[in-house]
Amino acid sequence: MATKKRIGLIRVLTTTDLKLLNLHGEMVMKAFPGFEVFSACIPDQPEGVHDDATEEMAVPKVAALARKMESDRMEAIIVSCAGDPGVDLASAELKIPVIGAGRAVASVARSFGLPVGVLGLSEKVPSSIRHILGNLMKADIVPAGVVSTLDFMTPEGMAATIEAGHNLKAKGVKVIALACTGLATIGAADKLREALSIPVVDPVSAEGAVAWAAIG
Amino acid sequence: MATKKRIGLIRVLTTTDLKLLNLHGEMVMKAFPGFEVFSACIPDQPEGVHDDATEEMAVPKVAALARKMESDRMEAIIVSCAGDPGVDLASAELKIPVIGAGRAVASVARSFGLPVGVLGLSEKVPSSIRHILGNLMKADIVPAGVVSTLDFMTPEGMAATIEAGHNLKAKGVKVIALACTGLATIGAADKLREALSIPVVDPVSAEGAVAWAAIG
Repeated sequence: MATKKRIGLIRVLTTTDLKLLNLHGEMVMKAFPGFEVFSACIPDQPEGVHDDATEEMAVPKVAALARKMESDRMEAIIVSCAGDPGVDLASAELKIPVIGAGRAVASVARSFGLPVGVLGLSEKVPSSIRHILGNLMKADIVPAGVVSTLDFMTPEGMAATIEAGHNLKAKGVKVIALACTGLATIGAADKLREALSIPVVDPVSAEGAVAWAAIG
Repeated sequence: MATKKRIGLIRVLTTTDLKLLNLHGEMVMKAFPGFEVFSACIPDQPEGVHDDATEEMAVPKVAALARKMESDRMEAIIVSCAGDPGVDLASAELKIPVIGAGRAVASVARSFGLPVGVLGLSEKVPSSIRHILGNLMKADIVPAGVVSTLDFMTPEGMAATIEAGHNLKAKGVKVIALACTGLATIGAADKLREALSIPVVDPVSAEGAVAWAAIG
């Protein structure tokens, strides 16, 4: 039995709830038993990252946590936020690979070569997602009434998400990229696939899948 | 226990050796137990796809096999060749998603946002890989003495592959994309990661990972 790879996973939602803190890491380990994932969150952002201001605040905190994780002998870092806050900075500073949820979900989505719809939290699609999708990005939408990642955790949030998916499909989208890891937390990908019968890329699955395909 | 998703996997190397035929499918199922993979190969290409002529020959054969697989109730198709022969054609014709190994490996590799080196079989990097990597593609190389996918299966082929990896790293490459599924067959990714200590994206892992992140 080979030793498990040590992966540091950074949450940008500040929480003392250990179940919530470890949720993405548990999802990654369940899918990829060869990974041992250690989760930690940045301080003082109880509503996570959901606009330019909260993203900017997160950047140095993510980079600092990534540095600490590298010194704790992690073999790769996952920044589990679709805005990829601090991913460029940490990538430039660290020797180990840094995977951002936004880059991962966009990369997986574009690999189908089909029109992509982005379903997320912020009115402005995160720049790394926009950049990677290029002109394959056909439409984007924020579910009605959703402001922070916490809103997805309500029944109304889920209903609005399915409605948004139908809306994207009506615009000719053939693949949906979920641009908020809060959508992974509520299992939105499965429900959208069932409702729409098209591929729906889950950001936590994508960050785990990218890590697994590249570092094994 | 949920029903397994039925995935059709197309080999472009004609073979009557069932172990070789099913090898990529077995790798995908081992990593993703939620998939049941059915493999089939195109006719009359015992040396696979390794240049423009063999790629062109493969295109209509891949599309025909993909159509048959769709009528056999597959839920997605994987074309397990880094040249992505027939992927565009099948994608345009079918209702189900079509994943090409080349697109998948390039997409995963580019998600790191770092300079990528392409290590493959053909002097000309496959166009879908070149297109997806864009200016992140820093260098490319074919291991010395390797002409067809069968050459990778020799000790000399493996030694030349490791040598090629060192060569790419010396050129400033930070991530390697393996642009031939024959390199998955011989387990080159693990050996290169060990020799070079950088992420190495395996095309069969990448095609499986993309399928898993998008259709679950």
